[in-house]
Amino acid sequence: MTTIPDTTAADVDLVVARAARASEQWKRTPIADRVRALVAVADALDAHADDLVPLAQRETHLAEARLRGELRRTSFQLRMFAEMLPEGLWLDARIDHADPEWPMGAPRPDLRRQLEPIGATLVFAASNFPFAFSVAGGDTASALAAGNAVVLKAHHGHPELSVATTDVVVTALAAAGAPDGLFQTIHGTDAGVRALQAPAIKAASFTGSVKGGRALFDIANARPEPIPFFGELGSTNPAFVTRRAADRDAAGIARDFVASVTGSAGQLCTKPGVLFVPEGSAIVDELGAQQLPAATPLLNGGIESGFRAALEATRAVDGVQTLLAADQGESDAPAPVLLTTTVDTLAGDMDALMSEMFGPAALVVTYGDERELLDIAARLEGQLTATVIGEDDDAIAADLLPRLTERAGRVLWNQWPTGVSVTWAQQHGGPYPATTAVGSTSVGMAAITRFLRPVAYQNVPDPLLPDALKESNPLGIVRRVDGVVTLP
Amino acid sequence: MTTIPDTTAADVDLVVARAARASEQWKRTPIADRVRALVAVADALDAHADDLVPLAQRETHLAEARLRGELRRTSFQLRMFAEMLPEGLWLDARIDHADPEWPMGAPRPDLRRQLEPIGATLVFAASNFPFAFSVAGGDTASALAAGNAVVLKAHHGHPELSVATTDVVVTALAAAGAPDGLFQTIHGTDAGVRALQAPAIKAASFTGSVKGGRALFDIANARPEPIPFFGELGSTNPAFVTRRAADRDAAGIARDFVASVTGSAGQLCTKPGVLFVPEGSAIVDELGAQQLPAATPLLNGGIESGFRAALEATRAVDGVQTLLAADQGESDAPAPVLLTTTVDTLAGDMDALMSEMFGPAALVVTYGDERELLDIAARLEGQLTATVIGEDDDAIAADLLPRLTERAGRVLWNQWPTGVSVTWAQQHGGPYPATTAVGSTSVGMAAITRFLRPVAYQNVPDPLLPDALKESNPLGIVRRVDGVVTLP
Repeated sequence: MTTIPDTTAADVDLVVARAARASEQWKRTPIADRVRALVAVADALDAHADDLVPLAQRETHLAEARLRGELRRTSFQLRMFAEMLPEGLWLDARIDHADPEWPMGAPRPDLRRQLEPIGATLVFAASNFPFAFSVAGGDTASALAAGNAVVLKAHHGHPELSVATTDVVVTALAAAGAPDGLFQTIHGTDAGVRALQAPAIKAASFTGSVKGGRALFDIANARPEPIPFFGELGSTNPAFVTRRAADRDAAGIARDFVASVTGSAGQLCTKPGVLFVPEGSAIVDELGAQQLPAATPLLNGGIESGFRAALEATRAVDGVQTLLAADQGESDAPAPVLLTTTVDTLAGDMDALMSEMFGPAALVVTYGDERELLDIAARLEGQLTATVIGEDDDAIAADLLPRLTERAGRVLWNQWPTGVSVTWAQQHGGPYPATTAVGSTSVGMAAITRFLRPVAYQNVPDPLLPDALKESNPLGIVRRVDGVVTLP
Repeated sequence: MTTIPDTTAADVDLVVARAARASEQWKRTPIADRVRALVAVADALDAHADDLVPLAQRETHLAEARLRGELRRTSFQLRMFAEMLPEGLWLDARIDHADPEWPMGAPRPDLRRQLEPIGATLVFAASNFPFAFSVAGGDTASALAAGNAVVLKAHHGHPELSVATTDVVVTALAAAGAPDGLFQTIHGTDAGVRALQAPAIKAASFTGSVKGGRALFDIANARPEPIPFFGELGSTNPAFVTRRAADRDAAGIARDFVASVTGSAGQLCTKPGVLFVPEGSAIVDELGAQQLPAATPLLNGGIESGFRAALEATRAVDGVQTLLAADQGESDAPAPVLLTTTVDTLAGDMDALMSEMFGPAALVVTYGDERELLDIAARLEGQLTATVIGEDDDAIAADLLPRLTERAGRVLWNQWPTGVSVTWAQQHGGPYPATTAVGSTSVGMAAITRFLRPVAYQNVPDPLLPDALKESNPLGIVRRVDGVVTLP
């Protein structure tokens, strides 16, 4: 494997300075040109699939089909942001005309407000999605779509792919006429920290571990000028099977759960890590009878040692047993495994037993009374997702679902949380430690809002206003005018 | 003055626990009932004006007319949030129906997303707006409107007024059927810190000094579960007078500037603290000929000593002179004063000379060439506001205004920044240190967004969905359905 050298401190400073200049230009680039550039990147990624996917396979050990699907999702995401831009609701444009009779007690001035690009943005790439949460992934797509330059801190787990993808992106942007320096990649932990502390960087995003993400969050907040840090850190994604659901389809639930746990060797942030099932139900036997996939290498050595440590910590708790383990075979990679315990044991040590095991493992927890699930739900740490597998008229559902919405950003009914769809309504984020910014999402169209900030214009003459706020609505966007939502 | 005892640690814990319970109930309270409660508080405040205003006068030294206006603004603000709630765009409801042909490469599940109450909210009251940014002020109004219980940390500058206003609010909420503990007030610095660290508190807001606000921001971020901290800290609010504007109306500009600087004895977060004027223009003489108001006591001893220290620090810089000082008379309160210097002196020590002087003082800075203003604008710290006094066809305007939008949340043209109107499009917030959360506002209808968080529902049966997301749109709100903005 070729070694990609770390970016030096001096080079980081040059990169950041270029990004700041590019961000100023990009902010003033017409929406139609922004759209063209995003689509050009999407097209270029698709065109280079045959070069990029083999590189990704070699560096991440992920399967070709999974990686081809992920690359499709990545270019789709860029195109979806491009499609959204002209419609303009994301600008949250508001126009209040002057009103001498405003009942506040003083005349209302002419006030107009829109969301504007936040400025040069630093994106920390993730290990587990070498396309969709990496160089040209969702954070980059939403930051660029919002009108910001991006400095991408490459993940050390796929350095060559990062360089190759960067080449594709930079070439496509240049051909589409985007400003020089709009997208740049840096390498190395120290380089990432230095960029995060640079005054010209105005926002940062991250997908990764709680430990790494918290350290960067703390650095972002300790700056003389703190900046928003959108970190997606960790989640156990509990799933709750009601007694009636287990009685109706124990085999189907067991099969689908195992598929969700072991897909991509369990290295997904929405993997259902803990499954609650009724004791004495057939589902425990069904789970024990599943065929687990063979051991496969994880993304990299750090992920593997972290997974082994988390698995051993869970196994070491009194009352935890192995329910099912895959055959180790000749492989020295970690074999998929299901552990099991009771809800009482879990309730006695939730910190340890609800910790994320990032890899092909999950904990099956048996409960007696469904009402016990309500206490567990109330004590959950923040989650990306929480799932209920139930019957539509289950009495517990009406109590359990609302409680889960307090602790998770996405609640699911009779579906599994892996396979996060890119849509208008998607939400990928939740209370800490799921994310460091509970009001944000890193997947779906609302992700753009992270990289915008509001600016109001008071009494500004029409020719000096940004297009979205001019009286004649030249962009033809949805606006709130004197309080009323107004379609173009 | 009656002494209000600090809230004990044990009582803070009880208050927070009650707030958490109340928040859960309030969240599930129908919008129509929430509206009724907000209006009831507004009515009660208006009805008690004759009791509350004299208390406020005694504790803050602010004038009766100003305080009566502020109370009107406070009840107006509550009513405006009440009016906004039924329309529902603030819920940002999005519905994506299941789509087996979704071009991402995998079927799209049914996904529905809305903003939900963030949870029990801690509000730190400000000293300088004993009604509008205190007990029942904008932060409380927007947090309650969003569906959260509020714990209010009273400002020590107006303790009796805080107790009296709390009584009015609590009585009105109870009569309107709101949950017990929906609004509670605590007293004392230690009590505020303890509440900020309580796990059941899910968001906090603050209006005050950079020093105090940064300390609380750091505490909020250092929690095991960090929470959003919406602090409005400090701003110098620079104003730039072009040469042609100064030539046309030097007298009017000087008069209006002095009025904006000295209103409420300069104790406004949007006071224009630095005015840039062309050297050799009549405006310097006009400023020197203004009649400054007499010295009046400031809000409290801490504000007064802080003001004196900031003023002396500015005066101590080489090249700073006194342009105009009010007659001290018999008063030992700080007399209003205008200092002056040149743009070169300012550029050499922007940290010192652009620091906020919270009280009746401002710095008048003379410049030679209007292009010098662009460099100053590029080097500004984050601001709540920035103002240009110009002619509509001034060549500098097209360059200066966009640059100011990078550093300020609100830019004004030929108006002065004090007197922050409560409207749909208002923006009160900007890059740090103006605020700790650059994406937020603490005035205007968008302030509600601070206290909301997104939740998505995947494949959830209609009867289990919240009303805003049910297929039939029972609330009759604006929603984004399959990507298209849809009016009810």
